[in-house]
Amino acid sequence: MRVQFAKRVDNMKGSEIREAIKLTLKPGMISFAGGLPAPEMFPVQEMKDAANHVLDEAGAVAMQYATTEGFDPLREKIAVRMKAKYAIDTVPQQILITNGSQQGLDFSAKLFLDEGDVVLFESPSYMGAFNAFKAYQPKFMEVPTDEDGMIPSELEKILETTERVKMIYVIPDFQNPTGRTWSLERRKAFMEIINKYDIPVIEDNPYGELRYEGESIPSLKSMDEKGLVIFLGSFSKILAPGYRIGWICAAPDILQRYIFVKQGADLQPSTVSQMEISRFMELYDLDAHVEKIRKLYGARRRLMLDTMKQEFPAEVTFTYPKGGLFTWVELPEHMDAREVLKECVERNVAYIPGGAFYPQGSHENTCRLNFSNMSEDKIVEGIKRMGEVLREIMK
Amino acid sequence: MRVQFAKRVDNMKGSEIREAIKLTLKPGMISFAGGLPAPEMFPVQEMKDAANHVLDEAGAVAMQYATTEGFDPLREKIAVRMKAKYAIDTVPQQILITNGSQQGLDFSAKLFLDEGDVVLFESPSYMGAFNAFKAYQPKFMEVPTDEDGMIPSELEKILETTERVKMIYVIPDFQNPTGRTWSLERRKAFMEIINKYDIPVIEDNPYGELRYEGESIPSLKSMDEKGLVIFLGSFSKILAPGYRIGWICAAPDILQRYIFVKQGADLQPSTVSQMEISRFMELYDLDAHVEKIRKLYGARRRLMLDTMKQEFPAEVTFTYPKGGLFTWVELPEHMDAREVLKECVERNVAYIPGGAFYPQGSHENTCRLNFSNMSEDKIVEGIKRMGEVLREIMK
Repeated sequence: MRVQFAKRVDNMKGSEIREAIKLTLKPGMISFAGGLPAPEMFPVQEMKDAANHVLDEAGAVAMQYATTEGFDPLREKIAVRMKAKYAIDTVPQQILITNGSQQGLDFSAKLFLDEGDVVLFESPSYMGAFNAFKAYQPKFMEVPTDEDGMIPSELEKILETTERVKMIYVIPDFQNPTGRTWSLERRKAFMEIINKYDIPVIEDNPYGELRYEGESIPSLKSMDEKGLVIFLGSFSKILAPGYRIGWICAAPDILQRYIFVKQGADLQPSTVSQMEISRFMELYDLDAHVEKIRKLYGARRRLMLDTMKQEFPAEVTFTYPKGGLFTWVELPEHMDAREVLKECVERNVAYIPGGAFYPQGSHENTCRLNFSNMSEDKIVEGIKRMGEVLREIMK
Repeated sequence: MRVQFAKRVDNMKGSEIREAIKLTLKPGMISFAGGLPAPEMFPVQEMKDAANHVLDEAGAVAMQYATTEGFDPLREKIAVRMKAKYAIDTVPQQILITNGSQQGLDFSAKLFLDEGDVVLFESPSYMGAFNAFKAYQPKFMEVPTDEDGMIPSELEKILETTERVKMIYVIPDFQNPTGRTWSLERRKAFMEIINKYDIPVIEDNPYGELRYEGESIPSLKSMDEKGLVIFLGSFSKILAPGYRIGWICAAPDILQRYIFVKQGADLQPSTVSQMEISRFMELYDLDAHVEKIRKLYGARRRLMLDTMKQEFPAEVTFTYPKGGLFTWVELPEHMDAREVLKECVERNVAYIPGGAFYPQGSHENTCRLNFSNMSEDKIVEGIKRMGEVLREIMK
């Protein structure tokens, strides 16, 4: 007899994105695969300074156990930032610090999903969310989605005809993987519908501050009058992912449940990481830092899109994201992006095939390209090589 | 209509231990409640030095995403330490870094427990484990336990007559809350039984290096020939809990599942925390540091036990732990440690009532006292005050 695992383990497998990060370690690889920030933008000296301040000023506190909810001065700064960046009126007591926003995804499924419950999401959507949710054995259902976000009539149709819809997962700003942003009208229509059905909504927003053109659009949470929206934020893209610090913002009765979940799951977030990020925000100007990131990524996005326009065959289409980290490419329908990838990897270029962003697979003619992580010359060189591969296959 | 939570949420509540940590923040409180390390022992200057090394030498790597399994040089050091301290033959590939060993508890339940499955544990046991497991809706079953550990005949009886036992949770070294350590004979008998039934065993070992007298006894994992034992380790008690770095050591096929669970739950452990602890272990002598901790805690334990002997009424009994952080007190059966606590808190002394360490409650005449966190004079003063309260109530 062998050790018996729980039934949920049957659903679990490795994430293609995480495997892709391993791929990028291959020397010489030009990788558009991961959603990695540009490491040259990390404020290393500033974080070193913050670390020295924290350890000099309160080292024994930083290294000790602390509360589950998180370090209060950091919760305060996040509450202020939620107002400034996302028009969300909140208080520190409605913020729980998590290990990146991925932990917020796991906790959300843990709180809202029994086996067989239905979770709705945009089509396509972030595969890491599926991986988090799968552990709780829900059913996944795609809501038809276009350039402007989830299509309200389609959402309503599903809610009218589907039992046990317990959670809706969305990324309204610069979506992963498509780079799309929901229009204001769509947001309003969406909120009207969910208010009617009282369904909790997970608004995943790791990229919201990374807008390169146009005006920012109010978050769903900022329009939330019934406490149905749970906002997930993160320092991973505006500061650095290596600290694993994100947050959940939710109505008090819901947040209290998240706090219990956090206690059981890992007691508390890292005291020292929280204090270092908090001290960084006191010593330095995070807004100015984000502005620098925006400039760099905006230029890289432009360069990638321009090069794609020039180098890709005309039958290949792609999105023009106004922010975030990704563009979404559609090859002619008969093509298989996984097969194309094999050719590309031969020439040291990598990306993520789009099928991975649909829990039922299909859409194998799509792929996701990241433009934040590679330098300008690598972007040009990588897209040229990809263009060559595509032209060769398609001719 | 209100938002609907998953059924598992009905079981979730805050941990009395975490609430107790809040209590200790009250000025003037002498707290024997938490399981907190002595903050004056934290190697603050050394960790600051390590942080500066890491950020100077590899800042951009430290702040970036990394692999789910953990930072390889740290996994290597842990594998070496597992051999040196616990006689466990392992390799870095069998180590997964977690957010403290609490996360290992959550992941274990996620991997092994379907709703209604049975998990066995010592009686009493660590309440934080119950809190972690509850989210997966198992049944808890106590195995009668004495001074030397789980009683093998009782364990065997339960396994013979109980269906769906899927996991056994134990703390063989300096148990939380009792401070007891399993004898070698008991360990051997236990391993014989679990080998017969192929049941996975979670060996939680946060205190194993903190022995103050006697010879160390081989871990269960060191006797594990079938890959059934999953060992949970932690830097929280030998270095500092604020970094939230622990680990799981398991057979390759089981560890691979833990890695998938980690990916879904929060992608990866903190890159920067892992690198800082790894660098600390290169720059400084962790063994020498643990030796200092052992000396201090050993003396505090002796002082607490001696003072209890002197100050507590003769009807009150308590354990003589050979290591770890806790002693376990039994009041006369008719007494209620929660009631006594109220009186004690009036006099600024706190501990954890023992009923919390039994998932079905009862045993309200017991309590857990921590001896690592308070200074010598506070230990004497706190135990004196507790003795006064007990004598007043019992006269």
